[in-house]
Amino acid sequence: MTLLADLLSTVFERRYRQRSQHVHDNRPIEELAEALVGSAGETSGLALASDILSAFEAMDDAQKLAFFNHIATAMNIDPEAVRDTLVAYKNGPSKASYRAFASAAEPRRQELIRRLNGVPGATAALVRMRADLLRLSDKDPQLEALDLDFRHLFASWFNRGFLVLRPINWESPARILEKITAYEAVHAIHSWSDLRRRLEPSDRRCFAFFHPSMPDEPLIFVEVALTQGIPGSVQNVLAEDRAPLPADQADTAVFYSISNCQAGLASISFGNSLIKQVASDLSAELSGLETFVTLSPIPNLTRWLTAQGIDWSDAVPEDLKTLAASYLLTAKGRGGVPYDPVARFHLGNGAIVHAVHGDADISDKGRAQSGGTMVNYLYDLNNVAQNHERFANTKEVVASAAVQTLAASTTITQT
Amino acid sequence: MTLLADLLSTVFERRYRQRSQHVHDNRPIEELAEALVGSAGETSGLALASDILSAFEAMDDAQKLAFFNHIATAMNIDPEAVRDTLVAYKNGPSKASYRAFASAAEPRRQELIRRLNGVPGATAALVRMRADLLRLSDKDPQLEALDLDFRHLFASWFNRGFLVLRPINWESPARILEKITAYEAVHAIHSWSDLRRRLEPSDRRCFAFFHPSMPDEPLIFVEVALTQGIPGSVQNVLAEDRAPLPADQADTAVFYSISNCQAGLASISFGNSLIKQVASDLSAELSGLETFVTLSPIPNLTRWLTAQGIDWSDAVPEDLKTLAASYLLTAKGRGGVPYDPVARFHLGNGAIVHAVHGDADISDKGRAQSGGTMVNYLYDLNNVAQNHERFANTKEVVASAAVQTLAASTTITQT
Amino acid sequence: MTLLADLLSTVFERRYRQRSQHVHDNRPIEELAEALVGSAGETSGLALASDILSAFEAMDDAQKLAFFNHIATAMNIDPEAVRDTLVAYKNGPSKASYRAFASAAEPRRQELIRRLNGVPGATAALVRMRADLLRLSDKDPQLEALDLDFRHLFASWFNRGFLVLRPINWESPARILEKITAYEAVHAIHSWSDLRRRLEPSDRRCFAFFHPSMPDEPLIFVEVALTQGIPGSVQNVLAEDRAPLPADQADTAVFYSISNCQAGLASISFGNSLIKQVASDLSAELSGLETFVTLSPIPNLTRWLTAQGIDWSDAVPEDLKTLAASYLLTAKGRGGVPYDPVARFHLGNGAIVHAVHGDADISDKGRAQSGGTMVNYLYDLNNVAQNHERFANTKEVVASAAVQTLAASTTITQT
Amino acid sequence: MTLLADLLSTVFERRYRQRSQHVHDNRPIEELAEALVGSAGETSGLALASDILSAFEAMDDAQKLAFFNHIATAMNIDPEAVRDTLVAYKNGPSKASYRAFASAAEPRRQELIRRLNGVPGATAALVRMRADLLRLSDKDPQLEALDLDFRHLFASWFNRGFLVLRPINWESPARILEKITAYEAVHAIHSWSDLRRRLEPSDRRCFAFFHPSMPDEPLIFVEVALTQGIPGSVQNVLAEDRAPLPADQADTAVFYSISNCQAGLASISFGNSLIKQVASDLSAELSGLETFVTLSPIPNLTRWLTAQGIDWSDAVPEDLKTLAASYLLTAKGRGGVPYDPVARFHLGNGAIVHAVHGDADISDKGRAQSGGTMVNYLYDLNNVAQNHERFANTKEVVASAAVQTLAASTTITQT
Repeated sequence: MTLLADLLSTVFERRYRQRSQHVHDNRPIEELAEALVGSAGETSGLALASDILSAFEAMDDAQKLAFFNHIATAMNIDPEAVRDTLVAYKNGPSKASYRAFASAAEPRRQELIRRLNGVPGATAALVRMRADLLRLSDKDPQLEALDLDFRHLFASWFNRGFLVLRPINWESPARILEKITAYEAVHAIHSWSDLRRRLEPSDRRCFAFFHPSMPDEPLIFVEVALTQGIPGSVQNVLAEDRAPLPADQADTAVFYSISNCQAGLASISFGNSLIKQVASDLSAELSGLETFVTLSPIPNLTRWLTAQGIDWSDAVPEDLKTLAASYLLTAKGRGGVPYDPVARFHLGNGAIVHAVHGDADISDKGRAQSGGTMVNYLYDLNNVAQNHERFANTKEVVASAAVQTLAASTTITQT
Repeated sequence: MTLLADLLSTVFERRYRQRSQHVHDNRPIEELAEALVGSAGETSGLALASDILSAFEAMDDAQKLAFFNHIATAMNIDPEAVRDTLVAYKNGPSKASYRAFASAAEPRRQELIRRLNGVPGATAALVRMRADLLRLSDKDPQLEALDLDFRHLFASWFNRGFLVLRPINWESPARILEKITAYEAVHAIHSWSDLRRRLEPSDRRCFAFFHPSMPDEPLIFVEVALTQGIPGSVQNVLAEDRAPLPADQADTAVFYSISNCQAGLASISFGNSLIKQVASDLSAELSGLETFVTLSPIPNLTRWLTAQGIDWSDAVPEDLKTLAASYLLTAKGRGGVPYDPVARFHLGNGAIVHAVHGDADISDKGRAQSGGTMVNYLYDLNNVAQNHERFANTKEVVASAAVQTLAASTTITQT
Repeated sequence: MTLLADLLSTVFERRYRQRSQHVHDNRPIEELAEALVGSAGETSGLALASDILSAFEAMDDAQKLAFFNHIATAMNIDPEAVRDTLVAYKNGPSKASYRAFASAAEPRRQELIRRLNGVPGATAALVRMRADLLRLSDKDPQLEALDLDFRHLFASWFNRGFLVLRPINWESPARILEKITAYEAVHAIHSWSDLRRRLEPSDRRCFAFFHPSMPDEPLIFVEVALTQGIPGSVQNVLAEDRAPLPADQADTAVFYSISNCQAGLASISFGNSLIKQVASDLSAELSGLETFVTLSPIPNLTRWLTAQGIDWSDAVPEDLKTLAASYLLTAKGRGGVPYDPVARFHLGNGAIVHAVHGDADISDKGRAQSGGTMVNYLYDLNNVAQNHERFANTKEVVASAAVQTLAASTTITQT
Repeated sequence: MTLLADLLSTVFERRYRQRSQHVHDNRPIEELAEALVGSAGETSGLALASDILSAFEAMDDAQKLAFFNHIATAMNIDPEAVRDTLVAYKNGPSKASYRAFASAAEPRRQELIRRLNGVPGATAALVRMRADLLRLSDKDPQLEALDLDFRHLFASWFNRGFLVLRPINWESPARILEKITAYEAVHAIHSWSDLRRRLEPSDRRCFAFFHPSMPDEPLIFVEVALTQGIPGSVQNVLAEDRAPLPADQADTAVFYSISNCQAGLASISFGNSLIKQVASDLSAELSGLETFVTLSPIPNLTRWLTAQGIDWSDAVPEDLKTLAASYLLTAKGRGGVPYDPVARFHLGNGAIVHAVHGDADISDKGRAQSGGTMVNYLYDLNNVAQNHERFANTKEVVASAAVQTLAASTTITQT
C-alpha cells in the first residue's frame, strides 16, 4: 500500500516535471558544466543540469566527443593538489584535512555527474551519455578514465538494493513490451504473436530488473520456460504448436534467454542477482519446481574450433556435442578463465555444466556460432555459493559426470 | 501504469526478502567486514552484508563505537599507496593507472558501505547506522572522517532525482501517519484528532519526500495551510473550531511546519527542493494561489537578546516585534550569515523576510524561544533564483519595506 | 495491472465528478422523482437523480417520511394494470405482452431507485436512504413493502460476485481505520493503540468486504487471531502484554469479532461468504493452519435464563458453562431454530458448537449478556457444506461430544 | 489510495478463485438450475452456479437452445399464482402479501440469473450467455421474453454509477489493447503499429468504460483526435506521416470512432454517457478545447439512395455531399426518427448536424456505404440537454445553416 501511494505521486510528479520550464542558459556546455560544479545551491543547479542534459542530447558525435574530452581533462584530478592535501592529512589527520584530501582526490567530473543526476529523469539520460562515451572513446586513456568514473557512480546507483524485480507478462504495458522485443538479444522476437507466446501461456514467465528512476526502461530480463524435465533444444521450447503445461505440473524452470538492455550499463552486473531472485521467487510460488537450469548458447564454439584448425562444418550433431563438451571444459581465455563468455557468466554465478545437446538451436545464428549445439547450466540453490567460491578461487570448471565423459571422448587441445 | 506495476513487484519482493534465510556467519563483525570488502562476487557478498547489518543492530553502544573505530582506522586510505599510485598515474596516465589511483584514494570503508547497501532494505539500516555514528563520535577526528564518507555516499544516493514527493493525507497508511506524528518538530501533534485536523480539511495539505528504498520512512515533510491572506499567528492556523476554506477560494499557501525526519541524514539537504516542488505542484493544482509564504519560528531570538544584555521578558508584543525585526536583519553568526538558523535556511533558498508578528505562537515553547513572535518568509517564485544568488554572494538579508521600517525603529546592535 | 489501471481512472473520475456542477432543479422532490422515472434519456436523468439525492440528504425526518410515503403509494403497482397485462400475456404470450406485464408488475419506485443509482457515488447515498427508511418505517405496511423493493435491488447489486475482499491492516488508510473503529460491534476498540494491537502484530488479521461503488465504506469485517490451540477467553486474545506469535507457527485461526457496518444493508447477508473466503485465503497463505474456529459471544443467554426463571447471578463459571451449553443446544425460537442469533448465524453457515468457556469475556457487556461465557463454533471446511444442508433441513444443532456431555449435565428445559 | 488497496486485494482474490475447486455436480443442467433457484443458502449455491456456468460454456448450440427454452418456459411466471397473490395484496396490502405478489410476478429465471451472478467472474459469463441467446433466439417469443429478463437485470448491473472510465493508451496492458484492436468496428486497426498511431501521439486519446466485475473486458470505447479546426476526412486524421500536435495547442476534440464491444450487452446504452464524460474530462484537462465534434460515417446513405431509385455511383463528391445533407435532414424511419442509425444516436444525445464532407472516407467500406461522405455531429456542452429534450419531443433534426443550405439545394424526397 505504502509503495502504491508512492507511485501515484510519482506519476503526478512526472507530469508536473514536463510542465516545468525555465529560460534556457545558452552558454557553451563546458561553461555550464563549470558553473554547475561550482554552484553553491540546488536552486540554480537543477536548471543548469537540465540545460546541460538537453544540450548534450542535441549534439552530434563530434560535439559529444569534444565535451567528453573537455571534462576528462579540465575536470580531472590535480596531482599537485592531491599530493599536498595528502601530506597535510598524513601530518595532521582531522575532519578538515580529510575533507580537503577527499575533495582533491576525486576528479570534479564525478561531482558533475552526480549533480546532473539531481534532475528528475536524469538517470536514464546519464546512462545514454555513457553509452555514447563507450561508443566514441576508442581506447583513449583519458576517456577510459572518465568511463571509470561513470562506472564507479553507476555501480553505486544501480546497486542491488535499489533495483526492483518486476514480472513481464501479457498484462504489462505495451510501452514496456515493445522494449522487451527490441532488447531480446538471444532468440529474436519476430512479432507481437511471437512475444505473446513467450509471455502468456501458463508455463511461461519473464522477469526484469528496473531502477525506480528509470521506470520505463528494463535493465535486464530473463525468459523462463516451466517444463517437465530438462529440454534439449530451443526449438521445442519455442514451438508454436506446443500445448502449454499447467504451471503447477512443472518440475523444472528453464532460463532460456537473458538479455542486457542498456549499453550504458556495460560492466554493471545484474545477471547473477536476477537469476537467483527469479529462482527464489519461482521456488516460493511453485512448490513442484526441483530443477533450475539454463538452455544456453555456446557463442564462441565455432570460432574457437576454427582457430584450433578443426573443420567442424561437416560434423554430425553427435560429434559436435562432443566437441562442445570438450570446448566448455578445456578452452581457456586470458587468466585461465573459460574462453566462452556465457560459460564464464554462469560458472561465475555458481552454476555447473550439466548437459550438452546437438541440433539444439537450428536457427542460422545457432548453426553459425555453435553448429547448433547448446548447453544446460544447472543452478543447484544449495551448492551455488560453494561453487561460486570454488570457481572464483580455482577457475575450475565443474561439470556433470555425463559431460565429463563426453568431453573425455575427444582429444582436442588448445594450441 | 508502468510505475504501478513496479510497485506491485516490490511488494512481493519485500515479502520474499523476509522469508529468505541463510546460515548466519558468526565471525566477529570486523572479520565479516573485511570479507565483504574482499569478496569477489555478490553471491557471498549479500549474505555477508546481511550478517553485518544484523550483527550491528544487535550491538550496544560500546560495541558500535568499537566497530566504527575499527573501520575508521583499518579501512582508511593508505597514504603510501595513494602517493605511489598518484606518481604512477602522473607519469603514465592510463586506464590501469587511473584505476589504481582511484582505488587507493578512496578508503575501503566507502566500498564497505556501498556493499552493505546491496542488501534490499539496507538503506534504512545504514541511515540508522550513521545516526549512531553521529551520536557516538564526539568530535573524534577519525570518526568525523568516517562520517564524511557516509555523507558523501548518502548525498549521492539521496539526490533529488531519486526522491519521490508524496502527499500525506487522511488516506495515507496509519504506519506513515504515526511517523508524521512522531517526527513533527515544530508544532507538536498531540493526538490522532490533532493530526486529522492538519490533514483532512479542504484547506490543509501535507507533503513528504521518500526514497524508493525506504518506502516506510518519510525523509522530510511540510505542512501547508491554504488561506485568504497571510496569517499572523499559528494559533489561528491551528484553531480547532475554525471553518475550513474551500481550496479553490484560497489565495495563499502557508508553509507552517517543516520537519526533518532522519537523524542519520543530517547535512543532506532536502528542504529547498521540497518547498519549491510543493509550491510548484500547488500552483498547478490551484490556479487561485498567488502567495507562497511561511509562518516560521524565530528559534534563537530570546537567546540572542539575552546574550546582548537585553531584558525582553516584560516587553509587550509590539516591542517584541520590533526586536525580532531588528534581530532578523542584523544579527549575524560566523561568516556573516544570519544568526537565526531558520532565517539562514529560507534566505538561502531565495525567500525574503516579509512580515513579523507578535503573540503569534503563544505556546510555552513559542514564548520561551521568541517571546511569541513569528515571521513570514515569502517565496516569490519569479525572484527566488535571483534572491538565492544574491544571498549566496552577498549574505545580504532582503526584507520587505515594512520589516525594514520596523527594524529601523530600534537601536539594537550586535555586541 | 488491469485492475490497477481501473482504479487510477476512478480516482480521476471522482475528482472530476466533484467538479461537475449543474443548475439545480428546485421543484419539489416528488415532482423530480416523477420526472426522473418519466425521463427518456440519461441526459436529463443524471441531473435529476443528483438533485433528488441532494434534496433528500438535506431533509429532516418528517420530510423524509413524507417522501417515503409518497413513493410507496404514488409509485406502487396499479393492480388493474397488472391484471390487464397479465390477461393479455396469458392470452397471447409475446415479447410485447411480456414487456407490458413485466413493466406493470414492477412498482415504478423500483425504477426510481435504479435510476437514482445511475449517478456516480449514489450507491452509498441509497444505502443511507434505506437506513433512514428502516429507522422511520415503524411497521407501516406500505413502507415495509417499499423496503422490500430496496432489499430486492440491493440483493442484486451487492451480490457476492461484485464484492471485493480487502485486508485491513496498519498500512490501510486512516479514513478506513476510523470506520473500523466506529463499526466494531462486538469488542469495542477504545483507541488507536487498541486498534493497532488488533491489526499490526504478526498473529493478527482483519478483512472486510467492499463494494466497488462504495470504496470508502466497509460492508462487513472480521477480526482474526492466529493462535496455537483454541483460546478460551477474549481477555487472552486481546491481552495488551502478550507476545505475538510468528504467523507460520499458528495452527488455529480464531474469528473473534464480526461486525456488519451498514444499517442500510440489513438482511443482505455477507457474513457466510466472508468467513469462508477468509478461511480459504488464510489456508492458502499459511499452510500450518488446521483449525478455523470462532470465539463468539452468547448474547441472549442471561435474558433467556431469566425468562426461564433461572437465577444465574450467583452461579460460578463452571455452572454458567453448563447452563450455556444447555442453552445453545436446547433453546429454540420461532420455527424451531436456535434462540441465540449468533448460534443461528454460524450453524446456518455449516459450523458446529465446539466448546463453551466460562469467564471468557469478563467485560461489563460480557458479564451482562452471558455471565462471561463464550463459545467456539468450529468451521471444518470439509464438512461445512453437509452441515449447512443438514441444519437447513433439520434445524438440528450439531455439537462436539464435550459440549453435549456438558449440556446433558443440566436439567434446564424451555418453558 | 483507498481504491488502489481494493484492487490489490482483488488481484489476490482472483488468484485464489482460480485455485478453488470443488467436486462437480454432474446432474443435467436443468436440474442444477432448479436446485440453484431452490437452494436456501449461498454455501451450496455458489458451487451450483459455478457448475451451471461451466456446463453451459461447454455446450453446443443445440444444447444451449434447449437450455434457454427450458428456463424460458419452466421458470416463467405462473399466471394463476400472479393473479391470486395480486388479489390477496389488493384486498389486504401488507408486507407479507406484497412479498408474495412480488415473488410470483417475477419469473424464477430472473432469480436464476441473479444467483448465477454470485460467482466471482460470472458477470462476463452471463454477458456471453446473453450473446448466445440473441444469436439463437430467432424471434421466438418465449426466448424474447427471456431476453427481456436478461436485459432488465443487465440494465441494473451495468448502470452508469457502477461503470469506470479508463484511458486506453500505450501504457495499457497488451491484453486490453488486443481487445481494442479486435473490437474496433468503424475504422479497422490493421496492426500494432496502426494501433500505436491511434494511442501514443500527443494528439490522440482513447477511453473505455469498464465494469469492475469484468476488468479485462472493455464495454465501449471512443477514439479521439485533438486538432486545430474540424477535420473533413478520416484519411487526414489517420495519416501515417502527419506531425502530432502538442495537446495544449488543440482547440477541437474529434470523436472519430465509437465501438461497442459486447454483443451480450446489446440495447444497454453506454455511448451517450461515454461521450459526455470524455468531453467533460478532456475539457477539464485541456483548457484550450472549444469544440467537441464527431467525424462519423453515414452507414445507410447509399442503401437509401438506391432504395429511392437514385443512381449515385457516378456522382462527384460535391454532389454526394448534397445528397448526404439532404438524406440526413429528411430521410425518416419508423416513427419519424432519422433513418440513419448513427444520426439517431448523436441527435438523441443532443448533438446537431454540423457539416458534411465528400471524399472523407475513401476506404472500400466508406465508398460502399456512403460514397465516401462523412458527417460532423457537434456536441455543444451548453446546449446538449436542450437539444436532447427537443429531439426527444419533436424528432426534429437540428443542423447548422450550412448543412441546411446544402440540403435545400437538392430535391430528393423520400418515396
